[in-house]
Amino acid sequence: MLTAEIIAIGSELLTPDRTDTNSLWLTEKLNGIGIEVKLKTIVGDDDARLEETIKDALRRSRVVIMTGGLGPTEDDITRKIAARALSRRLLFNEKVLSEISSKFERMGRGMPEINSRQAMVIQGAEVLDNPNGTAPGMYLEHNNCAVVLLPGPPREMRPMFENFVQPRLAAKVGDVRVVRRILRVVGLGESAVDERIAPIYTQYKNPQTTILFNRSEIEIHLTAQAKTEKDAELLLDGLAGQIEERLGHSIFAFRGETMEEVVGLRLAVGGFSLGVAESCTGGLISQRLTEVPGSSVYFKEGVVAYSNDAKTRSLGVDSELIRQHGAVSAVVAEAMAEGIRHRADTDFGLSVTGIAGPSGGTEDKPVGLVFIALSDDAHTEHRKIMLPGDRHLIRWRASQAALDLLRRRLI
Amino acid sequence: MLTAEIIAIGSELLTPDRTDTNSLWLTEKLNGIGIEVKLKTIVGDDDARLEETIKDALRRSRVVIMTGGLGPTEDDITRKIAARALSRRLLFNEKVLSEISSKFERMGRGMPEINSRQAMVIQGAEVLDNPNGTAPGMYLEHNNCAVVLLPGPPREMRPMFENFVQPRLAAKVGDVRVVRRILRVVGLGESAVDERIAPIYTQYKNPQTTILFNRSEIEIHLTAQAKTEKDAELLLDGLAGQIEERLGHSIFAFRGETMEEVVGLRLAVGGFSLGVAESCTGGLISQRLTEVPGSSVYFKEGVVAYSNDAKTRSLGVDSELIRQHGAVSAVVAEAMAEGIRHRADTDFGLSVTGIAGPSGGTEDKPVGLVFIALSDDAHTEHRKIMLPGDRHLIRWRASQAALDLLRRRLI
Repeated sequence: MLTAEIIAIGSELLTPDRTDTNSLWLTEKLNGIGIEVKLKTIVGDDDARLEETIKDALRRSRVVIMTGGLGPTEDDITRKIAARALSRRLLFNEKVLSEISSKFERMGRGMPEINSRQAMVIQGAEVLDNPNGTAPGMYLEHNNCAVVLLPGPPREMRPMFENFVQPRLAAKVGDVRVVRRILRVVGLGESAVDERIAPIYTQYKNPQTTILFNRSEIEIHLTAQAKTEKDAELLLDGLAGQIEERLGHSIFAFRGETMEEVVGLRLAVGGFSLGVAESCTGGLISQRLTEVPGSSVYFKEGVVAYSNDAKTRSLGVDSELIRQHGAVSAVVAEAMAEGIRHRADTDFGLSVTGIAGPSGGTEDKPVGLVFIALSDDAHTEHRKIMLPGDRHLIRWRASQAALDLLRRRLI
Repeated sequence: MLTAEIIAIGSELLTPDRTDTNSLWLTEKLNGIGIEVKLKTIVGDDDARLEETIKDALRRSRVVIMTGGLGPTEDDITRKIAARALSRRLLFNEKVLSEISSKFERMGRGMPEINSRQAMVIQGAEVLDNPNGTAPGMYLEHNNCAVVLLPGPPREMRPMFENFVQPRLAAKVGDVRVVRRILRVVGLGESAVDERIAPIYTQYKNPQTTILFNRSEIEIHLTAQAKTEKDAELLLDGLAGQIEERLGHSIFAFRGETMEEVVGLRLAVGGFSLGVAESCTGGLISQRLTEVPGSSVYFKEGVVAYSNDAKTRSLGVDSELIRQHGAVSAVVAEAMAEGIRHRADTDFGLSVTGIAGPSGGTEDKPVGLVFIALSDDAHTEHRKIMLPGDRHLIRWRASQAALDLLRRRLI
């Protein structure tokens, strides 16, 4: 197996607030084409240490990927130091400059003088175009080692890796394909999932299975190796099928889709429309649903009825109901779901009301108490749930539970 | 300033799913006592690479902290390889063994034979007790370098660092305190910020300045060193004041606050209330505002009017206006802001309408075209902006621009 190492460059990555996360994505992509990551280094904007790090990497690894430090400022030292570590010259590239400058023109701005630094290219390197930014990447072969320079922002780095770097590296590797599949689970804890499926997955060395806890979701990662992608997919189908038999509808995604994608697809396929009424989640459910391209086909309207007054005025919730039962109650959740369905004239109305904290809890209605409700023209139902975590997590988990209620209705 | 490097050990840290996070916590603790982290390495259970990594670290840093690889299994190679890199022997320690074995007794279990590995101690090292686990840590001085071995689980590592390592390192450092401050900028690009403030910050070695690009925001990180925290804060005040003179209201936060926190505080202090009408941002503005605890004081209601019908019905936007100018237009943005202000009976109405893509763009109205509007009882104004990026970024940037319009009105 080819071995790679990843060097993340930038002093901000050595602070308490930020760390390199590009390497996780890169590792997945590298593993996918059969390349193993053996070492990761995070180094600041420090000439001497970066040079030493690059030289060490070139000596011991067949693939060296650097991310970050390609910006236009004085701090961005990757071009210069990589050239030095490779004992190659840094050459001014007229074509790259004119591309950068036309990117600025298209944004209706002149190119700041300092951006001309980004037109310096390491001798012998191929220039990798950056569709989402001004810093081009570079690819070169040096003493049988593939050396890659990519910008730090994930939105720039990722397409450049996929379009230019991955095919070049895959060609070096030859016939091993590694395919991963992510199954996502809702409504079951990590140990419950493990207890049910361990008797199955422990029988397999290939695919390999890892169970991960990710926010409010359990993910089951399956990784298969084979000579072709198709063979690897077949291995995954076999194991995933057995896991599905054990977990049933608790698995909401078989290909790593998000809950909002899964729900959106079901709405679109069924030709259904949706309105959402939120209190404690404050717009999060609407925001998640509309993050999916094309969601305007099924998502019609959302209301964030934070005040009691808004619940009555905008959703038609009887103020007497709120007075008697409180805004956080089953009857109010149901009235909100019915209210948004009528008002937005949709097939489904989905609602959430609860106490996200940190304050506002009482003995009867503690922080974490959430009611979700779903209404269609036949009936309206609710669920009462108690969610652990801080404000952020309670809101996220409440949005997930509400979307899952709709998903199960659509199955 | 003393320089440290951190080595995180364990093959699981080289997978796509997990990375070292101990180093973030350690960095904060080290910075707090005036020690700078210059390099981080993540290395697997690989004898040769780990030995090389430790040797390099010993040569160039005054403090070397290793985490992980102290467990009882064959994979746990840190003790053995650290001893080899230091050219010291690994000695069996009777006292450590009896402590480990009595920990097992207290749990009502016998000590598995393999745990006796954890009683091997590097020659000359001080043993650091682990109250939450079986693996003891180690501390030693080697050629003027402080070498620290700590277990990987945060629950075990953190108290051991605080109780044993931090006081020893603080004594080596003497009287240095390091304080960081984060300034956040809106509406200016990285190069524009750098061009305006480089003439100032380049004159200072202390505080140090780093400019970072973080989603749609520019951050300016200032780090000051002094004998006391108060002196460091004074240094920061001086430089931050000069930067503010150059950038004015483009700086929206001086202590790393988010835009929604800054806007929320201004609304709360002024006793103002707010309603939000969103189209392309789909609830994101409401969701960001309500993520802040206590936001119910000023945030009253949000409407996600995704369909034209919802804009007319829920916000009172004249359908004739939509027909004539289109839903993405200045007049509709203003009508939405006025509509939500009347309907929610708030001091301010804030609105967004635009084309987030990927589809839906035309030559006249391309993807990225966004109108934001703000209404109060005196007048209503709008801004037309063109935002770069994909759907996710356009939505995020539109929400930021809208919140910033309100922030500037509140100044």
